[in-house]
Amino acid sequence: MTEIVTAAMLVIGDEILSGRTKDKNIGHLADIMTAVGIDLKEVRIVPDDEDDIVAALNAVRQRYTYVFTSGGIGPTHDDITADSVAKAFDVPCEYDTAAYAMLEAHYAKRGMEFTEARKRMARMPRGAAHIENPVSVAPGFRIGNVHVMAGVPSVFQAMLDKVVPTLKTGVKMLTATVPCPLGEGVIGGPLSEIQKAHPLTIIGSYPKFGEGKFWTELVVRARSEDALEAARKDVEAMVRDLGEAS
Amino acid sequence: MTEIVTAAMLVIGDEILSGRTKDKNIGHLADIMTAVGIDLKEVRIVPDDEDDIVAALNAVRQRYTYVFTSGGIGPTHDDITADSVAKAFDVPCEYDTAAYAMLEAHYAKRGMEFTEARKRMARMPRGAAHIENPVSVAPGFRIGNVHVMAGVPSVFQAMLDKVVPTLKTGVKMLTATVPCPLGEGVIGGPLSEIQKAHPLTIIGSYPKFGEGKFWTELVVRARSEDALEAARKDVEAMVRDLGEAS
Repeated sequence: MTEIVTAAMLVIGDEILSGRTKDKNIGHLADIMTAVGIDLKEVRIVPDDEDDIVAALNAVRQRYTYVFTSGGIGPTHDDITADSVAKAFDVPCEYDTAAYAMLEAHYAKRGMEFTEARKRMARMPRGAAHIENPVSVAPGFRIGNVHVMAGVPSVFQAMLDKVVPTLKTGVKMLTATVPCPLGEGVIGGPLSEIQKAHPLTIIGSYPKFGEGKFWTELVVRARSEDALEAARKDVEAMVRDLGEAS
Repeated sequence: MTEIVTAAMLVIGDEILSGRTKDKNIGHLADIMTAVGIDLKEVRIVPDDEDDIVAALNAVRQRYTYVFTSGGIGPTHDDITADSVAKAFDVPCEYDTAAYAMLEAHYAKRGMEFTEARKRMARMPRGAAHIENPVSVAPGFRIGNVHVMAGVPSVFQAMLDKVVPTLKTGVKMLTATVPCPLGEGVIGGPLSEIQKAHPLTIIGSYPKFGEGKFWTELVVRARSEDALEAARKDVEAMVRDLGEAS
């Protein structure tokens, strides 16, 4: 029996909840997790509020193998993710010596002042390890099973690329897609029977709507090729039979 | 003192967590809530799992003025939102007479069979009121402070348009945006001082990255015009002063 590896994501930021910024990191993380065989089980979007971040983080980090956060690690007063994560883990949030030196050198090289604000980006919970930031230097960090990354999508993606090789990954969820010209109202009953007959699969039905017509995308998911193919065959037969009957 | 009206959103669906479908409803709801003066405070994305839906719904419906859900109200076996909401409210989930009649007439008019699957779309928690669906007939529903809507974006949006006029709305959060050619590392310190000097505002700083350069969008939010303008003036002065100094 292979291990199931699970994950949750915490998106931190008032700007997502106000609609001002449209999140692009959830879908990206979801794609990557699926590709490497980790089940993303939950996402929460929370405001820039320490109590909210601490409560959400403590709820999800106990429950899932990994947690990934985006947002709130920049240099301004509303970037409170490092402090909040430290509080959740009950450790001090302090200047990380290596991060401090790296940022100091980065700004010195560019003849830019290493301001108090910029120094904030070197703060992290005691005991955290860096997540390299190839885009804009200031590192993310990992503490326990929690990976803290930037909100800017290009930086989030670059950091995630560094993190993925360090994760234990599960057996990939295999998927087979069966397009279906019929609406869910026609296939719902028979599809439910197929789901019951194939308990090792998860069969999803996704209604599509376009040009005044409903159609459906049927997706079979399983961790074993055999289970997948057996269910796929039944779903394809159902679509064919119902299509001929209609 | 005017009332603060809050909201949470529950996005229900394995397809969002797997990355297969990219959510479009969170950003839309966020925009609409901001426009009418309701604070969207939290979003959770949960899988098609009754226990997860019930737990998340009960957590958020106690805490916020309103809850909006998307997804899982179609006719197939994986559409378990109605049952889960009924369970959360501890009421039976049953055929709604009016919804049943409406769907029956709809399919009869089109010469289509009113299948068991289609009948599922008439099920809702006892005591729920309809949310009209001008796109594809099958209604959403409201029970208590929870509004249950479709996941297909065109239907979600149409249902939300029906719901919004029924909501009590708060004082609109006013916003002023100040573009800033400087990075967060330069403005972080002074901006933090401005935030302290204007406690009735929420000042956000959103790093932007493009063409190898960081710049920043500064957003002042307040519920009063006076508070907003006072803080905006200070932010603009800061950007001007720092720009001249750099």
